[in-house]
Amino acid sequence: MLIDIALDAYGSDKAPEPEIRGAILACRTLPVRVHLIGPEPEVRDLLDEHLENEDLPISVVHASERIGMEEKAAHAVRHKKDSSMRVGLKLVRERKCAGFVTAGNTGAAMATAKMVLGALPGVDRPALATPMPTSKGNPCVLLDVGANVDCKPHNLEQFAVMGEMYARSVLKIHKPRVGLLSIGEEESKGNDLTRDALPLLKALPIHFIGNVEGRDIFNGNADVIVCDGFVGNVALKTSEGIGRFVRDALRESLTKTVTAKVGALLSRQAFNDFRRRLDYTEYGGAPLLGVRGVCIIGHGSSNDNAIYNGIRVAYEFAKAGTNEKIEREFAQRPTRGHGAHTDPEATNPDATIQ
Amino acid sequence: MLIDIALDAYGSDKAPEPEIRGAILACRTLPVRVHLIGPEPEVRDLLDEHLENEDLPISVVHASERIGMEEKAAHAVRHKKDSSMRVGLKLVRERKCAGFVTAGNTGAAMATAKMVLGALPGVDRPALATPMPTSKGNPCVLLDVGANVDCKPHNLEQFAVMGEMYARSVLKIHKPRVGLLSIGEEESKGNDLTRDALPLLKALPIHFIGNVEGRDIFNGNADVIVCDGFVGNVALKTSEGIGRFVRDALRESLTKTVTAKVGALLSRQAFNDFRRRLDYTEYGGAPLLGVRGVCIIGHGSSNDNAIYNGIRVAYEFAKAGTNEKIEREFAQRPTRGHGAHTDPEATNPDATIQ
Repeated sequence: MLIDIALDAYGSDKAPEPEIRGAILACRTLPVRVHLIGPEPEVRDLLDEHLENEDLPISVVHASERIGMEEKAAHAVRHKKDSSMRVGLKLVRERKCAGFVTAGNTGAAMATAKMVLGALPGVDRPALATPMPTSKGNPCVLLDVGANVDCKPHNLEQFAVMGEMYARSVLKIHKPRVGLLSIGEEESKGNDLTRDALPLLKALPIHFIGNVEGRDIFNGNADVIVCDGFVGNVALKTSEGIGRFVRDALRESLTKTVTAKVGALLSRQAFNDFRRRLDYTEYGGAPLLGVRGVCIIGHGSSNDNAIYNGIRVAYEFAKAGTNEKIEREFAQRPTRGHGAHTDPEATNPDATIQ
Repeated sequence: MLIDIALDAYGSDKAPEPEIRGAILACRTLPVRVHLIGPEPEVRDLLDEHLENEDLPISVVHASERIGMEEKAAHAVRHKKDSSMRVGLKLVRERKCAGFVTAGNTGAAMATAKMVLGALPGVDRPALATPMPTSKGNPCVLLDVGANVDCKPHNLEQFAVMGEMYARSVLKIHKPRVGLLSIGEEESKGNDLTRDALPLLKALPIHFIGNVEGRDIFNGNADVIVCDGFVGNVALKTSEGIGRFVRDALRESLTKTVTAKVGALLSRQAFNDFRRRLDYTEYGGAPLLGVRGVCIIGHGSSNDNAIYNGIRVAYEFAKAGTNEKIEREFAQRPTRGHGAHTDPEATNPDATIQ
């Protein structure tokens, strides 16, 4: 049986080409039916061109509006009633699709998903989780990076539960090591938030490894790292910034002299290998954890492979019943927060990760 | 006339060799007299070995204790009354030296400096400022990275004044662009702290460019970036983490095949150039801004060049009268904070940046 996945055809910077090619890749290898959401004649024509009579389970669902990358989330949610994001997420709400994938405006996707899907029972604030590459090869899930700013200790506690479940059921990590992002390993270190969150995380039935530091995101010492959305967003964008700086500096140095150019040519395969290690696209985008449905948000620069992996992750997320597991987990636990619905004032829908 | 600089002989991981060689380099090129602080017979013997009868203005000042890298700051401050840090900072307090340089335990150095020197009039919390390399070549001063956690808006305001003055008087940046670290450029983005700090920073007589993001630390768009010490510490350690990861991944990829090895050999000069661009040691360590005296804290892995640059920065800091300028700036402004002394409870002396 095929699992239905809704894909925002007008998400990425170069949409809809990467989306169409990613959907084709996914339908060739995974038991999925992809519903491309976008303006009907246009998307269908392009799809037919790419399919070249190949028979794949891809359909087109019409949506007349597109949310721009620079558009304010609050504005998009209020005014674009027929956006590809809203149409796609409605398919998830109506159980016509098992998951939604977009490489579009992160803030708008989060805000639309929270509005259309709502939060899982017991979850106060959904959180955006980003898998980061590490030197050991395994990804490290950092959450929240989605701008749940000014979190309370019980929010971090919930992020830990959701992140651990995601790492276990989707990334297939046996016993995920969960850390709390702080500024030193000792328990006394941190700010008011982390010091108050620490005992809550210690009491959870997870493999909690205590405080970790910024460098632990990349050294493979933790599988899940929990933080306030402001801190997570700064960490994510800082790492993107230095990643780009290092690559640019390397490229510039390597094209300065003829000898270096020849050297670079001989090392080309090594550089490709190097790039692959740093490649986020293999991990298939960031899941928005804690909403009633599967919502995967990819980077605006997503290519075919990133879209394919986004669909793969949505498929695995749905197949593993991750949300049902999170829901069961919260039902078993006493609620420390404000109850079973999201706090709409508490989040900043205009925050971006792109 | 020579300017007297106190140098912790037992700071860096490989102390005292880098300290002795860095002091010799500095005395050969700068109008400084360096006072090496450490156990008297030992340091003097090593110094004499390195000097080989060269006549340089370097003296040795005895201090019997050394603060370890892993030692808790509070413990070191309380129990090591004759540490090289405390002896060196006392020379600054007694005006026998114009500045103190250490590559030792950051938390202990901050705590000792705050205790021995005290804060400048009008400064509520001293801040540790780190110059970060950028793709444009000019450094970007990030502060606070020294673990002034749970800052108030007026703390960030003071950090902006001090950071701008440092960039102007020591880094010789004509009209430093000062940004507030947040999660989006729009004024509505951020957390409670940044939203409340924004109007305070806008009202300052500096070139304030508004909110900036994590990636702006490295792209050269700002000369000074202001943030809470928790956030700054996470950003600093995240960038160190990914920097190390990228270098390791590159090295590993380049030694996988013979062709790559030959390529790497041919590109050796380019790699050295690349490394130089990423090299923090040129910037000479992190100044602790807002204390009554000059205190420069270098990385534990400091080499001769880093120590030399630490001494150079302390010399320029003192020569430029940066503290006197900061003091004048605060005297002219209405005090928004708690007055003219530091709040000892507000800082976490055990925080580390190494």
